[in-house]
Amino acid sequence: MDRIAIIGTGLIGTSLGLALRRAKVRNVEIIGHDREPTNASKARKLGAIDRMAWSIPDAVEGANLVIIAVPVQSVREVLAVAGPLVNEGTIVTDTASTKSDVVRWAEEILPSNVHFVGGHPMAGKETPGPDGAEADLFEGAYYCIVPGRRTPRESVRVVADLAQSVGAIPYFLDPQEHDGLVAAVSHLPLVVSAALVNTVSDTPSWREMGKLASSGFRDVSRLASGDPEMARDICLTNQEAIVYWLDAMIGSLTRYKEMVREGGEALETAFTQARVARDKWLRGEFEPGAENEQLPTLNDVVGDFFLGSVGRRLLGQTDEVAKRIEEQQRRRREEKS
Amino acid sequence: MDRIAIIGTGLIGTSLGLALRRAKVRNVEIIGHDREPTNASKARKLGAIDRMAWSIPDAVEGANLVIIAVPVQSVREVLAVAGPLVNEGTIVTDTASTKSDVVRWAEEILPSNVHFVGGHPMAGKETPGPDGAEADLFEGAYYCIVPGRRTPRESVRVVADLAQSVGAIPYFLDPQEHDGLVAAVSHLPLVVSAALVNTVSDTPSWREMGKLASSGFRDVSRLASGDPEMARDICLTNQEAIVYWLDAMIGSLTRYKEMVREGGEALETAFTQARVARDKWLRGEFEPGAENEQLPTLNDVVGDFFLGSVGRRLLGQTDEVAKRIEEQQRRRREEKS
Repeated sequence: MDRIAIIGTGLIGTSLGLALRRAKVRNVEIIGHDREPTNASKARKLGAIDRMAWSIPDAVEGANLVIIAVPVQSVREVLAVAGPLVNEGTIVTDTASTKSDVVRWAEEILPSNVHFVGGHPMAGKETPGPDGAEADLFEGAYYCIVPGRRTPRESVRVVADLAQSVGAIPYFLDPQEHDGLVAAVSHLPLVVSAALVNTVSDTPSWREMGKLASSGFRDVSRLASGDPEMARDICLTNQEAIVYWLDAMIGSLTRYKEMVREGGEALETAFTQARVARDKWLRGEFEPGAENEQLPTLNDVVGDFFLGSVGRRLLGQTDEVAKRIEEQQRRRREEKS
Repeated sequence: MDRIAIIGTGLIGTSLGLALRRAKVRNVEIIGHDREPTNASKARKLGAIDRMAWSIPDAVEGANLVIIAVPVQSVREVLAVAGPLVNEGTIVTDTASTKSDVVRWAEEILPSNVHFVGGHPMAGKETPGPDGAEADLFEGAYYCIVPGRRTPRESVRVVADLAQSVGAIPYFLDPQEHDGLVAAVSHLPLVVSAALVNTVSDTPSWREMGKLASSGFRDVSRLASGDPEMARDICLTNQEAIVYWLDAMIGSLTRYKEMVREGGEALETAFTQARVARDKWLRGEFEPGAENEQLPTLNDVVGDFFLGSVGRRLLGQTDEVAKRIEEQQRRRREEKS
């Protein structure tokens, strides 16, 4: 029997467990650990894990795959504790929101026969903890797969399988590229959302304003209800890109301020541009394109390699996937240059 | 039979019609007009209005109550067209997002025997037009009631009845107070949401970033999909307050930028403050307090005055409501001073 260890059974860790269970991954035992035992206990009651472990060493013992689903800066500690204890050939992945530091830590900390593949499912909600977990949280979402420089192809393939088995679409990136892109569409909205709440709530009129705040305020401020530790860790492991985008956002708000003062046509143009861009995005202009459509599904390629059941009859196909990954990365580099 | 005219059968106008129908307001005919006849036609098919009118004069003829549900700057045109045509004693209200200009226009344009009471239901969604209309859009929401200086008590009472009959809670404010408060919790989020989309979409990487944008981006950017004309009108009729809050927001983002650069404890504190403030708000710390709980419901006080059925036996109670309104306004002035 294979064994998966999930370290951190919060929203993402527990949802991954539920999604793996729903995918009917066979002959795999899922062990869960959380620094808050009540979280692990909840995950077990929800059926996301088979057994809870009281410590990281206990959780990772004998695991073929270790999934670290904790705030970014805690990934380092987990790597340091788990690294010396896992078997040769174990694959370690994470789900943290930034990747450059994580991949570097893994390269520094893990023994060379333990294979790290960074992961980042582009899904979430503001309610932290296992209570908000959902088996279909990752359904149709992109799942960033961020290998290190020395990660073997087969290990990348396993984490891509994991992504597909929870319903997500693997999306291959290098760490710096990942952090630059998500700074704009994930970290900037997070800081903007929190800053909006700070701005309006830190005033004597908030008691009255709060009464009038409606669904618009609720949605724009949603990310402010997320885990502050996770938010801090994101900012501290992606400083440069976040500062870049904060500057861009401040510039944009400054232009709006001028347009509001001046009151000309430019204001309606700016609002129209925003609406058109968002509506295109909503209509799925950026949905899976050719590069991902060619990736085989879990059923096509089977989880056999990963789940170790009927053998490795599909290794040829696995190599083909690896070739596609390289091809995809090559094209991206060319597009950028 | 009494007659209500709804000018503008978009999201709000059509939802008001549906909510009035659901409230089983009897012996009232609802006439609807929209500058886009297809909108009025849709509203009729949805059952929000009994009859569509092809022009504003046709719509307001013989109406006891005129509800103007159009973008702020168009309210002025509607007032100018409808003003000379409505009967003596007709009550005119609107649903626009800013109130100072609207109340001033009404005082300038309407004959002195036509009574204007500004209104602003604190509910909405980003899909404009009658297609998104819902009978329960206003359920449990505050409904700002903003009388002019010369508005008779009885007219204010009628619009408060209207608010209650659609499931909302009347909230009495003067125009400047209204515009100052909603600038922070409604107009600032609108501009922030649009500016976020402008910031990230106006870059070569948007195609890739858009793929990774997830539910967080979707929510924070939601208001950017609203009607650009409405957004422009809001900004142009509430310039001073919006510029004030944009400055505050820019200040807040600048502090975040410094905190991200410095990387100390302050960052987690700021995120924690935002989370605590929003969670308190979500828990309803600002829900209807004593001042509104004492307001009688529609059934208590009857729609008789408004609906003109069994007479005015409750006028005494109406006076009492007016006294409460004055009391509430007095307390608010004292609190502010």
